[in-house]
Amino acid sequence: MAAGNAIGRCPGSAEARERCGIIGICGTQSAAKLAYLGLYSLQHRGQESAGIVVSDGQEIQSKKGLGLLSAAIDPTELTQLPGHMAVGHVRYSTTGSGRVQIIQPLVIEYSRGIVAVAHNGNLTNARALRRSYEENGSIFQTSTDSEVFVHLLADPENAGAPDPLGRALQRVRGAYSLLVLTARQLVAVRDPYGFRPLALGQLDGGYVVASESCAFDLLGAEFVREIEPGEIVTISESGLRTSRFSEQTQRAYCVFEYIYFARPDSVIGGEVVHNVRLRLGAKLAEQWPAEADSVIAIPDSGNSAALGYSRRSAIPLDMGFVRNHYVGRTFITPAEEARISGVNIKLNILRDVVRGKRLVVVDDSIVRGTTSRERIAALREAGAREIHMRISAPPIRHPCFYGIDFQHADELIAASRSVEETCRFIGADSLGYQTIEGLVDALPGSADHYCLACFGGDYPVSPEEGMHKLSLEQRQG
Amino acid sequence: MAAGNAIGRCPGSAEARERCGIIGICGTQSAAKLAYLGLYSLQHRGQESAGIVVSDGQEIQSKKGLGLLSAAIDPTELTQLPGHMAVGHVRYSTTGSGRVQIIQPLVIEYSRGIVAVAHNGNLTNARALRRSYEENGSIFQTSTDSEVFVHLLADPENAGAPDPLGRALQRVRGAYSLLVLTARQLVAVRDPYGFRPLALGQLDGGYVVASESCAFDLLGAEFVREIEPGEIVTISESGLRTSRFSEQTQRAYCVFEYIYFARPDSVIGGEVVHNVRLRLGAKLAEQWPAEADSVIAIPDSGNSAALGYSRRSAIPLDMGFVRNHYVGRTFITPAEEARISGVNIKLNILRDVVRGKRLVVVDDSIVRGTTSRERIAALREAGAREIHMRISAPPIRHPCFYGIDFQHADELIAASRSVEETCRFIGADSLGYQTIEGLVDALPGSADHYCLACFGGDYPVSPEEGMHKLSLEQRQG
Amino acid sequence: MAAGNAIGRCPGSAEARERCGIIGICGTQSAAKLAYLGLYSLQHRGQESAGIVVSDGQEIQSKKGLGLLSAAIDPTELTQLPGHMAVGHVRYSTTGSGRVQIIQPLVIEYSRGIVAVAHNGNLTNARALRRSYEENGSIFQTSTDSEVFVHLLADPENAGAPDPLGRALQRVRGAYSLLVLTARQLVAVRDPYGFRPLALGQLDGGYVVASESCAFDLLGAEFVREIEPGEIVTISESGLRTSRFSEQTQRAYCVFEYIYFARPDSVIGGEVVHNVRLRLGAKLAEQWPAEADSVIAIPDSGNSAALGYSRRSAIPLDMGFVRNHYVGRTFITPAEEARISGVNIKLNILRDVVRGKRLVVVDDSIVRGTTSRERIAALREAGAREIHMRISAPPIRHPCFYGIDFQHADELIAASRSVEETCRFIGADSLGYQTIEGLVDALPGSADHYCLACFGGDYPVSPEEGMHKLSLEQRQG
Amino acid sequence: MAAGNAIGRCPGSAEARERCGIIGICGTQSAAKLAYLGLYSLQHRGQESAGIVVSDGQEIQSKKGLGLLSAAIDPTELTQLPGHMAVGHVRYSTTGSGRVQIIQPLVIEYSRGIVAVAHNGNLTNARALRRSYEENGSIFQTSTDSEVFVHLLADPENAGAPDPLGRALQRVRGAYSLLVLTARQLVAVRDPYGFRPLALGQLDGGYVVASESCAFDLLGAEFVREIEPGEIVTISESGLRTSRFSEQTQRAYCVFEYIYFARPDSVIGGEVVHNVRLRLGAKLAEQWPAEADSVIAIPDSGNSAALGYSRRSAIPLDMGFVRNHYVGRTFITPAEEARISGVNIKLNILRDVVRGKRLVVVDDSIVRGTTSRERIAALREAGAREIHMRISAPPIRHPCFYGIDFQHADELIAASRSVEETCRFIGADSLGYQTIEGLVDALPGSADHYCLACFGGDYPVSPEEGMHKLSLEQRQG
Repeated sequence: MAAGNAIGRCPGSAEARERCGIIGICGTQSAAKLAYLGLYSLQHRGQESAGIVVSDGQEIQSKKGLGLLSAAIDPTELTQLPGHMAVGHVRYSTTGSGRVQIIQPLVIEYSRGIVAVAHNGNLTNARALRRSYEENGSIFQTSTDSEVFVHLLADPENAGAPDPLGRALQRVRGAYSLLVLTARQLVAVRDPYGFRPLALGQLDGGYVVASESCAFDLLGAEFVREIEPGEIVTISESGLRTSRFSEQTQRAYCVFEYIYFARPDSVIGGEVVHNVRLRLGAKLAEQWPAEADSVIAIPDSGNSAALGYSRRSAIPLDMGFVRNHYVGRTFITPAEEARISGVNIKLNILRDVVRGKRLVVVDDSIVRGTTSRERIAALREAGAREIHMRISAPPIRHPCFYGIDFQHADELIAASRSVEETCRFIGADSLGYQTIEGLVDALPGSADHYCLACFGGDYPVSPEEGMHKLSLEQRQG
Repeated sequence: MAAGNAIGRCPGSAEARERCGIIGICGTQSAAKLAYLGLYSLQHRGQESAGIVVSDGQEIQSKKGLGLLSAAIDPTELTQLPGHMAVGHVRYSTTGSGRVQIIQPLVIEYSRGIVAVAHNGNLTNARALRRSYEENGSIFQTSTDSEVFVHLLADPENAGAPDPLGRALQRVRGAYSLLVLTARQLVAVRDPYGFRPLALGQLDGGYVVASESCAFDLLGAEFVREIEPGEIVTISESGLRTSRFSEQTQRAYCVFEYIYFARPDSVIGGEVVHNVRLRLGAKLAEQWPAEADSVIAIPDSGNSAALGYSRRSAIPLDMGFVRNHYVGRTFITPAEEARISGVNIKLNILRDVVRGKRLVVVDDSIVRGTTSRERIAALREAGAREIHMRISAPPIRHPCFYGIDFQHADELIAASRSVEETCRFIGADSLGYQTIEGLVDALPGSADHYCLACFGGDYPVSPEEGMHKLSLEQRQG
Repeated sequence: MAAGNAIGRCPGSAEARERCGIIGICGTQSAAKLAYLGLYSLQHRGQESAGIVVSDGQEIQSKKGLGLLSAAIDPTELTQLPGHMAVGHVRYSTTGSGRVQIIQPLVIEYSRGIVAVAHNGNLTNARALRRSYEENGSIFQTSTDSEVFVHLLADPENAGAPDPLGRALQRVRGAYSLLVLTARQLVAVRDPYGFRPLALGQLDGGYVVASESCAFDLLGAEFVREIEPGEIVTISESGLRTSRFSEQTQRAYCVFEYIYFARPDSVIGGEVVHNVRLRLGAKLAEQWPAEADSVIAIPDSGNSAALGYSRRSAIPLDMGFVRNHYVGRTFITPAEEARISGVNIKLNILRDVVRGKRLVVVDDSIVRGTTSRERIAALREAGAREIHMRISAPPIRHPCFYGIDFQHADELIAASRSVEETCRFIGADSLGYQTIEGLVDALPGSADHYCLACFGGDYPVSPEEGMHKLSLEQRQG
Repeated sequence: MAAGNAIGRCPGSAEARERCGIIGICGTQSAAKLAYLGLYSLQHRGQESAGIVVSDGQEIQSKKGLGLLSAAIDPTELTQLPGHMAVGHVRYSTTGSGRVQIIQPLVIEYSRGIVAVAHNGNLTNARALRRSYEENGSIFQTSTDSEVFVHLLADPENAGAPDPLGRALQRVRGAYSLLVLTARQLVAVRDPYGFRPLALGQLDGGYVVASESCAFDLLGAEFVREIEPGEIVTISESGLRTSRFSEQTQRAYCVFEYIYFARPDSVIGGEVVHNVRLRLGAKLAEQWPAEADSVIAIPDSGNSAALGYSRRSAIPLDMGFVRNHYVGRTFITPAEEARISGVNIKLNILRDVVRGKRLVVVDDSIVRGTTSRERIAALREAGAREIHMRISAPPIRHPCFYGIDFQHADELIAASRSVEETCRFIGADSLGYQTIEGLVDALPGSADHYCLACFGGDYPVSPEEGMHKLSLEQRQG
């Protein structure tokens, strides 16, 4: 058995902005199997690594691996993970680092025992916290935000306090939905702004906590409620306790969970995501009508909005692209060597459907604009007569520091180009973005409960210095 | 390095009915890479094993493996397969045998050299041919039909003839689209009835032969024409030669390529499959109208027909199910142990969409009826008010001996139950099957060019005795 | 799971000269485990691949792999091989071909069922037999002699006869100790000349057949007798039957089993090999005395003879070399790149022991002379004053066609150089080879029962044409 | 790619007593390859894991794995470890923990950069140091002594000092030969008592540091000298610097390196180990003569002493056992299930050699006595007439806290039984142990430079409380 590692300077946490899916199980038989299935429902939130940690009340054990869940963890080995409590994690990382050690959940032993941490979101003061601990002689095993939580727990100031976790959380800033497993309990935490979702369900007399409710459907669990921003939920053999560690009332729910990140069958903020997307499509049809023969979606993220557009506009929906379900990153290399665009690998155009047609093409968002440009070029090459691009999201002009991978402002086409310039860049005949009013109108609940920083630059929690540098200044450069 | 095998009695070929995808490349750089990408486009035709064999004009080399293409063959190793000619194969087998030896393309050395065979379809006299060779002292390495072709080639009667392959083909009966690679040439053959599709394309001055044209789109190859039933196309450095080995004129194209097997973006018989499916859906709307609030598809095979039904009926399309793209067979075991239905793993219902609604649910076909029953029960449990099932195919009453996996008549619900009984069994409020007239009407070309054996039992080529026993008699039993 | 192969022209059998170890078990619990342990005792006979095939009376299953037994077969998987009968094989091959398919025992299905063949030795008419079957349309899966046996069994002329194996053996020429396993019986055969050893033992009411008796010691089996040349022993649930398929009386036991190939603790021809080697060393001391300070062995093959020389000459034995027990072929590459001689990797000199000393150095044989030259140079570099080389075997002047890897005459230094020239080539102060008289004198039994072809060129069975070409003519070239 | 771990309470360091081999390379091309070959020479010091860490002056990279070197690190991957500096480690651990993380060399990043630590020996205050750091909030990744060194380096008190390592070493107690690699330098340290060996060599203008000089022979390096107890040697591009961190003058060289641990071809304390063992055998012949026919060794550790006994006593040496070179722990399981003693797997008796004979049997030491008992029983079963056991070491009565695996006093037969009782227990006709006087007489240098704690209980460095508990008290229990 062999293992190898290249270890250079560990990247600072600001570079490690991640989107992830997390799940926690407590109080059921075969917690590992349920966590596995739950992660499978959350696979769209991260395909680069997966991990499951279980406790049987005494011992903590884990399985982790790189890649999709099915590659990372052999399900036949789940029987080696006995226990009634589990946490699981799937990760998408922008760093590309393949170190097995940083696969979450992190499992770390400190003076008080062993703890496993699964985390979705990004801290805005992780670098500063790390630096201060290192100056005191502490050694970090990874560059993840998750380890910062453990050092906070191990800090003698917190470790000796009556509520070590609540006390530790006072020092972190930023976005985090967090699961902490010890030998005897599972703790779920959502940051005071509620950036990232986290839902609570019930199953067979036990509890499930997951990033999205679609995991409950598969497990046959019942949706109970969302974890509140600033809430700590502690689940153990003696049941569920809840407490608050912050009285802050400002909210900053991420709109991109609705626009493209969450699965359409998840219920967030009381509403199924598909219906919100239908409304986003209908809003687009109202704001940006078009003379066209067909409405087609960019699969799969544009599917619901295209249906909404078609219904409101009465322009027939058609299937312009077929998605290849078997795509994986392994295909990229040979495809590139054969000079085949990655765009074509994932989606194939139905030439006979688009030839000679005036098309409304609906997508969820435009980041760099290069993918849209390639898709539009491919449609034209297949004979499309007109292409009217309609986008469910408003123009993205600012990076996200809370867990969505808009990393650098200079990668965002809308940060430096007008809508007209963008339309020319992507080669469409017309381009209609969602307005911010249209967006908040389509969302459930109060408009001021959402984080709109990526559209307007108004950040609810300031990024720390390094993050700023990496992102905002690059845009100005 | 270790390898293991369980070898019992080899199953007779009649049990090894397979559906597959094949690709051949000749006259390009990096033939292995192109074959790999082509197989990736044909992955829907078989997910159990994959193999690529190349020739550089002198040496023949191969890579094979079990599972999806990405698991079976590491694309970084394709550079170890140099050559300008390649054949590839993906296989779906109903036997479940995981023997590495029978992964196609078969590579076999006989007195005249090394030959690789990739085959889609099923011979109806494979057992008889095998038995006669074994009685003469020949030894078979596998139970595949493909090996029968090689023994025919090695037979001194054929090996010494001017056209060994043409002569050998005189002795085989049944369905076969066949690729044969030797060190110096690639030969493509389609059986005289044309059961299974096979298309010819051009790329960079070379040729591509593939089960479906969608492979050409990805490679950037140009569609030339379909290989004719009874045609042998020989491609080598000196170009393309064509000949006929049969003057038979009856045709028996498989209708299930249109109904569910082929990708919607493939062009077969001159028409894109999606459009045929739209027409099948429209026919259903005409034949079997319904009072309903929404039309929903069983993804993905019902998508096009549901759209056709919605357009013709003016009942709005909606998204009733979300398909999980990451499903694989590895999930089955833990899911079963957690008492989770395989039906729910693949598709999740959008409860908020179906609750209280009268639904038209469109699917491609009903085989056993058990999957439909589970889906309908799940829709009811989610609150659907009425469920009107509409099926693109007519009732399937007879097994297929030519490569579609309707194996045994006793597995086919329509073989023993009336439509009303089936409707009750699956729990729908109404059930509307396509009529045979509706079907052939929606298909391109002449109605008598199609094999309709699975609906009416009229087999264009008689199965050999063993096949009959396995299938037809079981139904009567 | 992936598998790959490079298949060029299959090498003719003459190139595939192999030395091997075989074991058969019948009538015990856990036959696979006993076969595994037996192979472990026979590992010195072949380190390139290992395989075990079992039968439980109905089904035949196998595990095979490349490399040492421990790498080739995971012992924890032996429970997957239930049955009371087994055959095992370890192989050393001079071809270097790493094809998994040719790992023995070969398992092949033919018209009469499944058969597994494990074979030690080399046929001298394998090519001719193969050619004749291929001309009749038969297809060979491998280039091994073992497969020739199966085609002979499948031949309708033999398959229909009352004693198919006995009949088939009439057509083969050369050296073979053979085990054949079918679902219901184990058959052990030794060729009429008895080139290679094969012994019969008893264990727990069942039987063991092995290349060497050292396998019996480990298993706790009792040595019964050697299988006779020309004998077929058939073991099944109904006990042991013996018959003869040849009345030929000439014998040709291989002397190299005594000189270096067999383990010193094996009993062959009624005598423990160590004692024969002690006598070979004593003979050398008588024939080739020397004035010296110490006798040292080239470990391990020279150990016994060096002790014999020391005892007879009264020159004290010392330890001049330490053997590294962990050597494997994986070390060769980095060692070569670091310009370190392979000679030094395996054996390290004890400089303080040899410095300033007059040494008698005892080795089993000289093939090319290059290894001896390197060792002598290393001893001189370490300060040895005089080096008197003594060799247990006479000069090897002719290739072996019966399973010892003296392949080509032009690789044999004694084929083209006199003893004096060889002494100069290897750099010794004196060189003393065993005489043929000394050799046969030290061996048990009658002198005319041994094959001495490699010394004198008098081949008991003529090699077929291709073999001759490969070896003898190359020498003349 | 998958990785799994079971993490319970980390064992305290006292249980992790290890014997190991270490190597460091600085200033050569291909340092990784040389380290690999060096580890191969040191494989006898540890077969449970192996690791190599390299630096090219900027980046630090590593390869590690479980098992023998050849299994742990694929030598073809050494090219992925560029650099002119390397440290390597092979480990034998008594804990049996298979965690990949604790494979040495440990690679850890702390505030001052990345450091790799390879360590042979055992600290006697590791637990206390760890506890004090944990109370300060530090988190340990492993349970190894090696990590304690890194936390000492990261301690702000040391990290800021002019000589961080020298300062850190003031706080550790016990046995350690230590290699520390940073991006720019290699540091070699030997504890003030010099428990474990550590030698310095020169190669191609660079330096090699290794546990034993046999590694130099293979690399073609020249032996320079041993690293002095209490010395720090720092090697970098600017050459070699030496300094002392302790002025203590008491020495405590381990006698077991001579008795059985070191390779016979290593030079320690100015003398080749084989010659020391010859003298130990000669001393035994003087102290414990016997009337016998043959002297036989327990291979391989008794080989030299048996030769020494034979020479002094003039009783002829013979080969009573053959060692199987291919033994590995994988064989243990199936052998046990087949009720085959582990003793027989490793060594086979030459029955014809021992039958009817009066034997002197020479071994290096007796620990539990059970192995000796099994060997003697096997010799008697093979027909030996008398067995006179002679042991190179004196009776071992006390556990070792400095790196030899005599763990618990209650496992040591000599701790609770007299020589007569032991002789009866093992079943010998007579038993002669080395006297302590005989031992020190045979060793080079001054008698008071050796640690004799395991014979007399006089520990040069007191074990910490936990160690004491684990070992001494158990003996009393």
